Amino acid sequence: MIGTMDKIRRHTERARTEQDDLFGVLDACSVGTFSTVVDGLPWVVPMLYGRDGNHILLHGSTGAGALRHVAAGAPAALCVCILDGIVVADTLFDSSANYRSAVVRGNLTTLSAEESANALTTLSDSILPGRSGEVREHQRKELAATRALALPIEPGQWTVKVRDAPPGQVEESQAGTWAGVVPLRTVAGDPVRAPWVDASAPLPGSVRKLLGSQG
Amino acid sequence: MIGTMDKIRRHTERARTEQDDLFGVLDACSVGTFSTVVDGLPWVVPMLYGRDGNHILLHGSTGAGALRHVAAGAPAALCVCILDGIVVADTLFDSSANYRSAVVRGNLTTLSAEESANALTTLSDSILPGRSGEVREHQRKELAATRALALPIEPGQWTVKVRDAPPGQVEESQAGTWAGVVPLRTVAGDPVRAPWVDASAPLPGSVRKLLGSQG
Repeated sequence: MIGTMDKIRRHTERARTEQDDLFGVLDACSVGTFSTVVDGLPWVVPMLYGRDGNHILLHGSTGAGALRHVAAGAPAALCVCILDGIVVADTLFDSSANYRSAVVRGNLTTLSAEESANALTTLSDSILPGRSGEVREHQRKELAATRALALPIEPGQWTVKVRDAPPGQVEESQAGTWAGVVPLRTVAGDPVRAPWVDASAPLPGSVRKLLGSQG
Repeated sequence: MIGTMDKIRRHTERARTEQDDLFGVLDACSVGTFSTVVDGLPWVVPMLYGRDGNHILLHGSTGAGALRHVAAGAPAALCVCILDGIVVADTLFDSSANYRSAVVRGNLTTLSAEESANALTTLSDSILPGRSGEVREHQRKELAATRALALPIEPGQWTVKVRDAPPGQVEESQAGTWAGVVPLRTVAGDPVRAPWVDASAPLPGSVRKLLGSQG
Protein backbone atom coordinates (compact mmCIF):
# COMPACT_ATOMS: atom_id res chain seq x y z
CA MET A 1 0.00 0.00 0.00
CA ILE A 2 1.34 3.40 -0.78
CA GLY A 3 1.44 6.17 1.78
CA THR A 4 -0.80 9.16 2.12
CA MET A 5 -1.40 10.77 -1.21
CA ASP A 6 -0.76 14.38 -0.24
CA LYS A 7 2.98 13.89 0.09
CA ILE A 8 5.66 13.52 -2.50
CA ARG A 9 7.99 10.86 -1.13
CA ARG A 10 10.39 10.37 -4.01
CA HIS A 11 12.52 13.10 -5.59
CA THR A 12 11.36 15.46 -2.86
CA GLU A 13 13.63 18.13 -4.37
CA ARG A 14 11.12 18.30 -7.22
CA ALA A 15 8.16 19.07 -4.98
CA ARG A 16 6.71 22.56 -4.92
CA THR A 17 4.50 23.57 -2.04
CA GLU A 18 3.39 27.14 -2.73
CA GLN A 19 -0.08 27.62 -4.12
CA ASP A 20 1.37 30.01 -6.70
CA ASP A 21 3.45 27.13 -8.06
CA LEU A 22 0.26 25.11 -8.47
CA PHE A 23 -1.54 27.99 -10.17
CA GLY A 24 1.47 28.50 -12.45
CA VAL A 25 1.33 24.92 -13.69
CA LEU A 26 -2.45 24.87 -14.04
CA ASP A 27 -2.50 28.18 -15.92
CA ALA A 28 0.25 27.13 -18.31
CA CYS A 29 -1.89 24.35 -19.75
CA SER A 30 -5.45 23.87 -20.90
CA VAL A 31 -5.84 20.12 -21.16
CA GLY A 32 -5.46 17.64 -18.33
CA THR A 33 -6.30 14.05 -17.56
CA PHE A 34 -9.38 13.63 -15.45
CA SER A 35 -9.57 10.48 -13.38
CA THR A 36 -12.18 8.79 -11.27
CA VAL A 37 -13.06 5.28 -10.12
CA VAL A 38 -15.86 3.34 -11.78
CA ASP A 39 -16.75 -0.12 -10.47
CA GLY A 40 -13.40 -0.24 -8.70
CA LEU A 41 -11.46 0.45 -11.89
CA PRO A 42 -9.52 3.58 -12.84
CA TRP A 43 -11.35 5.70 -15.38
CA VAL A 44 -9.43 8.38 -17.23
CA VAL A 45 -10.25 10.88 -19.92
CA PRO A 46 -8.48 13.97 -21.25
CA MET A 47 -10.43 17.17 -20.55
CA LEU A 48 -10.11 20.84 -21.23
CA TYR A 49 -10.16 22.84 -18.03
CA GLY A 50 -9.92 26.36 -16.73
CA ARG A 51 -9.18 27.88 -13.35
CA ASP A 52 -11.22 30.43 -11.45
CA GLY A 53 -9.40 31.31 -8.24
CA ASN A 54 -9.47 28.25 -6.01
CA HIS A 55 -11.55 26.15 -8.39
CA ILE A 56 -10.73 24.12 -11.44
CA LEU A 57 -13.55 24.30 -13.93
CA LEU A 58 -14.56 21.40 -16.14
CA HIS A 59 -17.42 20.94 -18.52
CA GLY A 60 -19.05 18.39 -20.71
CA SER A 61 -22.33 17.30 -22.16
CA THR A 62 -25.09 16.59 -19.69
CA GLY A 63 -25.33 13.21 -21.41
CA ALA A 64 -21.74 12.22 -20.67
CA GLY A 65 -21.62 9.22 -18.34
CA ALA A 66 -18.42 10.02 -16.53
CA LEU A 67 -19.55 13.50 -15.67
CA ARG A 68 -22.86 12.19 -14.33
CA HIS A 69 -20.84 9.79 -12.24
CA VAL A 70 -18.53 12.37 -10.69
CA ALA A 71 -21.31 14.87 -10.32
CA ALA A 72 -22.92 12.30 -8.06
CA GLY A 73 -19.97 12.54 -5.69
CA ALA A 74 -17.36 10.08 -6.87
CA PRO A 75 -13.79 11.01 -5.91
CA ALA A 76 -11.87 12.63 -8.72
CA ALA A 77 -8.39 13.81 -9.63
CA LEU A 78 -7.04 16.01 -12.38
CA CYS A 79 -3.47 15.54 -13.59
CA VAL A 80 -1.73 18.18 -15.68
CA CYS A 81 1.73 17.75 -17.17
CA ILE A 82 3.85 19.97 -19.37
CA LEU A 83 6.88 18.33 -20.93
CA ASP A 84 9.53 21.06 -21.00
CA GLY A 85 12.54 19.21 -22.28
CA ILE A 86 14.41 16.00 -22.92
CA VAL A 87 17.27 15.52 -20.50
CA VAL A 88 20.12 13.84 -22.37
CA ALA A 89 22.51 12.31 -19.85
CA ASP A 90 25.66 10.29 -20.39
CA THR A 91 23.84 7.11 -19.45
CA LEU A 92 20.30 5.95 -20.19
CA PHE A 93 19.79 5.45 -16.46
CA ASP A 94 20.37 9.14 -15.76
CA SER A 95 18.40 10.37 -18.76
CA SER A 96 15.16 12.04 -17.86
CA ALA A 97 12.73 14.76 -18.80
CA ASN A 98 12.15 18.27 -17.56
CA TYR A 99 8.52 18.85 -16.76
CA ARG A 100 5.98 20.65 -14.62
CA SER A 101 3.13 18.57 -13.28
CA ALA A 102 0.24 18.97 -10.90
CA VAL A 103 -2.36 16.65 -9.43
CA VAL A 104 -5.45 18.04 -7.74
CA ARG A 105 -7.76 15.67 -5.90
CA GLY A 106 -11.21 16.22 -4.55
CA ASN A 107 -14.92 15.89 -5.05
CA LEU A 108 -16.59 17.83 -7.81
CA THR A 109 -19.39 20.27 -7.32
CA THR A 110 -22.06 20.69 -9.99
CA LEU A 111 -22.62 24.34 -10.73
CA SER A 112 -26.03 25.98 -10.99
CA ALA A 113 -27.23 27.29 -14.35
CA GLU A 114 -26.18 30.80 -13.42
CA GLU A 115 -22.77 29.75 -12.13
CA SER A 116 -22.36 27.61 -15.23
CA ALA A 117 -22.61 30.58 -17.56
CA ASN A 118 -19.71 32.31 -15.82
CA ALA A 119 -17.75 29.07 -15.53
CA LEU A 120 -18.07 28.30 -19.22
CA THR A 121 -16.94 31.82 -20.08
CA THR A 122 -13.94 31.51 -17.76
CA LEU A 123 -13.13 28.09 -19.14
CA SER A 124 -13.30 29.38 -22.69
CA ASP A 125 -11.08 32.34 -21.88
CA SER A 126 -8.59 30.01 -20.19
CA ILE A 127 -8.14 28.26 -23.52
CA LEU A 128 -8.29 31.32 -25.78
CA PRO A 129 -8.03 34.50 -23.69
CA GLY A 130 -10.39 37.26 -24.76
CA ARG A 131 -12.56 35.08 -26.99
CA SER A 132 -15.67 35.53 -24.85
CA GLY A 133 -15.74 39.24 -25.67
CA GLU A 134 -15.90 38.54 -29.42
CA VAL A 135 -18.99 36.32 -29.54
CA ARG A 136 -22.51 36.43 -28.21
CA GLU A 137 -23.56 35.30 -24.70
CA HIS A 138 -24.44 31.70 -23.93
CA GLN A 139 -27.99 30.75 -24.81
CA ARG A 140 -30.30 29.06 -22.38
CA LYS A 141 -30.44 25.87 -24.45
CA GLU A 142 -26.65 25.73 -24.59
CA LEU A 143 -26.43 25.99 -20.83
CA ALA A 144 -29.07 23.28 -20.50
CA ALA A 145 -26.99 20.95 -22.66
CA THR A 146 -23.79 21.52 -20.71
CA ARG A 147 -22.76 20.38 -17.29
CA ALA A 148 -20.25 22.66 -15.61
CA LEU A 149 -18.37 21.28 -12.66
CA ALA A 150 -15.88 22.72 -10.21
CA LEU A 151 -13.06 20.87 -8.48
CA PRO A 152 -12.07 22.83 -5.37
CA ILE A 153 -8.36 23.37 -4.76
CA GLU A 154 -7.94 22.53 -1.09
CA PRO A 155 -4.93 22.29 1.22
CA GLY A 156 -3.45 18.82 1.36
CA GLN A 157 -5.30 17.80 -1.78
CA TRP A 158 -2.74 18.70 -4.42
CA THR A 159 0.86 18.08 -5.37
CA VAL A 160 3.16 19.89 -7.76
CA LYS A 161 6.38 18.52 -9.20
CA VAL A 162 8.90 20.37 -11.30
CA ARG A 163 12.11 19.07 -12.84
CA ASP A 164 14.02 21.90 -14.44
CA ALA A 165 17.70 21.02 -14.43
CA PRO A 166 20.56 19.68 -16.51
CA PRO A 167 21.32 15.95 -16.42
CA GLY A 168 23.21 14.68 -13.40
CA GLN A 169 26.96 14.50 -13.80
CA VAL A 170 28.06 10.88 -13.74
CA GLU A 171 31.27 8.91 -13.95
CA GLU A 172 30.99 8.82 -17.74
CA SER A 173 30.60 12.61 -18.11
CA GLN A 174 33.38 14.36 -20.04
CA ALA A 175 33.87 17.90 -21.27
CA GLY A 176 34.17 16.68 -24.85
CA THR A 177 31.00 14.57 -24.82
CA TRP A 178 27.77 16.46 -25.23
CA ALA A 179 25.10 16.06 -22.57
CA GLY A 180 22.38 18.55 -21.79
CA VAL A 181 18.76 19.43 -22.32
CA VAL A 182 16.73 19.77 -25.50
CA PRO A 183 13.97 22.24 -24.57
CA LEU A 184 10.48 21.58 -25.91
CA ARG A 185 7.70 24.07 -26.31
CA THR A 186 4.29 24.29 -27.93
CA VAL A 187 3.83 26.81 -30.71
CA ALA A 188 0.86 27.90 -32.77
CA GLY A 189 1.04 27.53 -36.52
CA ASP A 190 -0.71 29.53 -39.23
CA PRO A 191 -4.44 29.72 -38.51
CA VAL A 192 -6.63 27.70 -40.90
CA ARG A 193 -9.95 29.37 -41.69
CA ALA A 194 -13.20 27.40 -41.76
CA PRO A 195 -14.52 26.46 -45.24
CA TRP A 196 -17.20 29.18 -45.32
CA VAL A 197 -14.88 32.00 -44.25
CA ASP A 198 -13.52 34.49 -46.82
CA ALA A 199 -9.77 34.80 -47.15
CA SER A 200 -10.21 38.50 -46.43
CA ALA A 201 -11.93 37.98 -43.06
CA PRO A 202 -9.68 39.54 -40.42
CA LEU A 203 -8.35 37.36 -37.61
CA PRO A 204 -10.10 38.02 -34.28
CA GLY A 205 -8.07 39.88 -31.68
CA SER A 206 -7.92 36.78 -29.46
CA VAL A 207 -6.25 34.75 -32.20
CA ARG A 208 -3.88 37.59 -33.14
CA LYS A 209 -2.91 37.91 -29.48
CA LEU A 210 -2.30 34.16 -29.17
CA LEU A 211 -0.04 34.22 -32.22
CA GLY A 212 1.72 37.36 -31.03
CA SER A 213 2.39 36.00 -27.57
CA GLN A 214 4.71 33.29 -28.84
CA GLY A 215 8.25 33.51 -27.51
CA MET B 1 -23.34 4.25 -13.44
CA ILE B 2 -21.60 4.66 -16.74
CA GLY B 3 -21.69 1.98 -19.40
CA THR B 4 -19.01 -0.48 -20.36
CA MET B 5 -15.67 1.22 -20.67
CA ASP B 6 -14.55 -0.21 -23.97
CA LYS B 7 -17.04 1.80 -25.98
CA ILE B 8 -17.10 5.43 -26.92
CA ARG B 9 -20.70 6.50 -26.55
CA ARG B 10 -20.48 10.20 -27.19
CA HIS B 11 -19.09 11.82 -30.33
CA THR B 12 -18.81 8.39 -31.86
CA GLU B 13 -17.54 10.05 -35.05
CA ARG B 14 -14.36 10.74 -33.15
CA ALA B 15 -13.72 7.11 -32.27
CA ARG B 16 -10.97 5.18 -34.04
CA THR B 17 -11.01 1.43 -33.95
CA GLU B 18 -7.93 0.28 -35.85
CA GLN B 19 -4.91 -0.80 -33.86
CA ASP B 20 -2.74 1.31 -36.16
CA ASP B 21 -4.67 4.38 -35.00
CA LEU B 22 -3.84 3.48 -31.42
CA PHE B 23 -0.18 2.91 -32.22
CA GLY B 24 -0.09 6.22 -34.09
CA VAL B 25 -1.29 8.15 -31.05
CA LEU B 26 0.94 6.26 -28.63
CA ASP B 27 4.01 6.70 -30.81
CA ALA B 28 3.41 10.42 -31.32
CA CYS B 29 3.86 11.12 -27.63
CA SER B 30 6.24 10.11 -24.86
CA VAL B 31 4.47 11.20 -21.69
CA GLY B 32 1.07 9.98 -20.51
CA THR B 33 -0.99 9.97 -17.35
CA PHE B 34 -0.88 6.73 -15.48
CA SER B 35 -3.86 5.95 -13.29
CA THR B 36 -4.73 3.34 -10.74
CA VAL B 37 -6.99 2.99 -7.69
CA VAL B 38 -5.54 3.24 -4.19
CA ASP B 39 -7.86 2.77 -1.20
CA GLY B 40 -10.83 3.37 -3.48
CA LEU B 41 -9.50 6.70 -4.69
CA PRO B 42 -8.17 7.60 -8.12
CA TRP B 43 -4.40 7.88 -8.18
CA VAL B 44 -2.76 9.60 -11.14
CA VAL B 45 0.79 10.46 -12.08
CA PRO B 46 2.43 11.58 -15.32
CA MET B 47 4.86 9.00 -16.68
CA LEU B 48 7.22 8.61 -19.59
CA TYR B 49 6.41 5.54 -21.61
CA GLY B 50 7.47 3.63 -24.67
CA ARG B 51 5.87 1.01 -26.85
CA ASP B 52 7.23 -2.36 -27.87
CA GLY B 53 4.76 -4.03 -30.20
CA ASN B 54 1.67 -4.87 -28.18
CA HIS B 55 3.06 -3.61 -24.90
CA ILE B 56 3.34 -0.22 -23.33
CA LEU B 57 6.53 0.03 -21.31
CA LEU B 58 6.78 2.01 -18.10
CA HIS B 59 9.51 2.35 -15.56
CA GLY B 60 10.29 3.86 -12.24
CA SER B 61 12.33 3.42 -9.11
CA THR B 62 11.87 0.14 -7.25
CA GLY B 63 11.15 2.34 -4.23
CA ALA B 64 8.18 4.11 -5.82
CA GLY B 65 4.97 3.27 -4.00
CA ALA B 66 2.56 3.46 -6.89
CA LEU B 67 4.65 1.13 -8.99
CA ARG B 68 4.84 -1.39 -6.17
CA HIS B 69 1.08 -1.13 -5.95
CA VAL B 70 0.35 -1.76 -9.60
CA ALA B 71 3.08 -4.36 -9.85
CA ALA B 72 1.05 -6.25 -7.27
CA GLY B 73 -1.86 -6.46 -9.71
CA ALA B 74 -3.95 -3.35 -9.25
CA PRO B 75 -5.92 -2.33 -12.33
CA ALA B 76 -4.28 0.44 -14.30
CA ALA B 77 -4.93 2.78 -17.20
CA LEU B 78 -2.69 5.01 -19.27
CA CYS B 79 -4.12 8.10 -20.92
CA VAL B 80 -2.26 9.92 -23.67
CA CYS B 81 -3.44 13.16 -25.24
CA ILE B 82 -1.95 15.39 -27.89
CA LEU B 83 -3.55 18.81 -28.26
CA ASP B 84 -3.38 19.57 -31.98
CA GLY B 85 -5.26 22.82 -32.22
CA ILE B 86 -7.68 25.32 -30.82
CA VAL B 87 -11.02 25.24 -32.63
CA VAL B 88 -12.34 28.79 -32.80
CA ALA B 89 -16.07 28.67 -33.53
CA ASP B 90 -18.58 31.50 -33.84
CA THR B 91 -19.99 30.67 -30.43
CA LEU B 92 -18.30 29.56 -27.20
CA PHE B 93 -20.62 26.57 -27.13
CA ASP B 94 -19.25 25.27 -30.43
CA SER B 95 -15.64 26.07 -29.66
CA SER B 96 -13.50 23.04 -29.09
CA ALA B 97 -10.06 21.56 -29.51
CA ASN B 98 -8.51 19.25 -32.04
CA TYR B 99 -6.71 16.39 -30.37
CA ARG B 100 -5.65 12.77 -30.52
CA SER B 101 -6.13 10.73 -27.39
CA ALA B 102 -5.83 7.15 -26.30
CA VAL B 103 -6.67 5.23 -23.15
CA VAL B 104 -5.25 1.75 -22.58
CA ARG B 105 -6.51 -0.29 -19.63
CA GLY B 106 -5.17 -3.45 -18.13
CA ASN B 107 -3.05 -5.09 -15.49
CA LEU B 108 0.65 -4.48 -15.48
CA THR B 109 3.27 -7.17 -15.68
CA THR B 110 6.59 -6.75 -13.89
CA LEU B 111 9.44 -7.59 -16.22
CA SER B 112 12.37 -9.81 -15.31
CA ALA B 113 15.85 -8.30 -15.02
CA GLU B 114 16.71 -9.48 -18.52
CA GLU B 115 13.47 -8.21 -20.05
CA SER B 116 13.95 -4.96 -18.15
CA ALA B 117 17.23 -4.18 -19.89
CA ASN B 118 15.58 -4.40 -23.30
CA ALA B 119 12.48 -2.56 -22.09
CA LEU B 120 14.51 0.33 -20.69
CA THR B 121 16.44 0.60 -23.94
CA THR B 122 13.21 0.61 -25.96
CA LEU B 123 11.67 3.15 -23.60
CA SER B 124 14.70 5.39 -23.90
CA ASP B 125 14.70 5.15 -27.69
CA SER B 126 10.97 5.96 -27.72
CA ILE B 127 11.81 9.29 -26.10
CA LEU B 128 15.03 10.04 -27.99
CA PRO B 129 15.40 7.64 -30.92
CA GLY B 130 18.92 6.31 -31.40
CA ARG B 131 20.23 7.42 -28.02
CA SER B 132 20.83 3.87 -26.80
CA GLY B 133 23.50 3.37 -29.47
CA GLU B 134 25.49 6.34 -28.18
CA VAL B 135 25.97 5.36 -24.55
CA ARG B 136 27.11 2.26 -22.67
CA GLU B 137 24.86 -0.66 -21.75
CA HIS B 138 22.78 -0.71 -18.57
CA GLN B 139 24.71 -1.78 -15.47
CA ARG B 140 23.47 -4.45 -13.14
CA LYS B 141 23.01 -2.00 -10.26
CA GLU B 142 20.99 0.32 -12.51
CA LEU B 143 18.67 -2.51 -13.46
CA ALA B 144 18.35 -3.46 -9.79
CA ALA B 145 17.24 0.08 -8.94
CA THR B 146 14.63 0.24 -11.70
CA ARG B 147 11.30 -1.47 -12.02
CA ALA B 148 10.23 -2.00 -15.61
CA LEU B 149 6.59 -2.78 -16.22
CA ALA B 150 4.55 -3.68 -19.26
CA LEU B 151 0.91 -2.84 -19.90
CA PRO B 152 -0.43 -5.24 -22.53
CA ILE B 153 -2.49 -3.75 -25.35
CA GLU B 154 -5.47 -6.09 -25.59
CA PRO B 155 -8.66 -6.07 -27.67
CA GLY B 156 -11.52 -4.29 -25.95
CA GLN B 157 -9.18 -2.64 -23.48
CA TRP B 158 -8.40 0.55 -25.32
CA THR B 159 -10.09 3.52 -26.93
CA VAL B 160 -8.82 6.14 -29.34
CA LYS B 161 -10.44 9.48 -30.04
CA VAL B 162 -9.45 11.99 -32.68
CA ARG B 163 -10.95 15.39 -33.41
CA ASP B 164 -9.38 16.85 -36.51
CA ALA B 165 -11.86 19.20 -38.13
CA PRO B 166 -12.89 22.82 -38.52
CA PRO B 167 -15.47 24.30 -36.16
CA GLY B 168 -19.07 23.42 -36.85
CA GLN B 169 -20.96 25.94 -38.98
CA VAL B 170 -23.65 27.59 -36.89
CA GLU B 171 -26.37 30.17 -37.32
CA GLU B 172 -23.91 32.94 -36.46
CA SER B 173 -21.34 31.89 -39.08
CA GLN B 174 -20.63 34.41 -41.80
CA ALA B 175 -18.11 34.60 -44.63
CA GLY B 176 -16.74 37.86 -43.28
CA THR B 177 -16.26 36.66 -39.70
CA TRP B 178 -13.19 34.55 -39.08
CA ALA B 179 -13.62 31.12 -37.56
CA GLY B 180 -11.23 28.24 -37.90
CA VAL B 181 -8.44 26.32 -36.25
CA VAL B 182 -5.20 27.50 -34.72
CA PRO B 183 -2.88 24.48 -35.06
CA LEU B 184 -0.54 23.72 -32.17
CA ARG B 185 2.62 21.68 -32.28
CA THR B 186 5.58 20.91 -30.05
CA VAL B 187 8.98 22.04 -31.24
CA ALA B 188 12.49 21.60 -29.89
CA GLY B 189 14.51 24.69 -29.09
CA ASP B 190 18.27 25.18 -29.08
CA PRO B 191 19.94 22.45 -27.03
CA VAL B 192 21.46 23.64 -23.74
CA ARG B 193 24.69 21.85 -22.82
CA ALA B 194 25.35 20.63 -19.28
CA PRO B 195 27.67 22.82 -17.17
CA TRP B 196 30.72 20.56 -17.57
CA VAL B 197 30.42 20.22 -21.35
CA ASP B 198 32.69 22.24 -23.67
CA ALA B 199 31.05 24.53 -26.19
CA SER B 200 32.95 22.65 -28.88
CA ALA B 201 31.49 19.24 -27.98
CA PRO B 202 29.54 18.02 -31.01
CA LEU B 203 25.84 17.27 -30.62
CA PRO B 204 25.10 13.54 -30.59
CA GLY B 205 23.46 12.15 -33.71
CA SER B 206 20.23 11.44 -31.80
CA VAL B 207 19.86 15.09 -30.82
CA ARG B 208 20.78 16.32 -34.32
CA LYS B 209 18.19 13.98 -35.76
CA LEU B 210 15.52 15.20 -33.32
CA LEU B 211 16.23 18.82 -34.27
CA GLY B 212 16.34 17.97 -37.97
CA SER B 213 13.04 16.11 -37.92
CA GLN B 214 11.05 19.20 -37.07
CA GLY B 215 8.49 20.19 -39.65
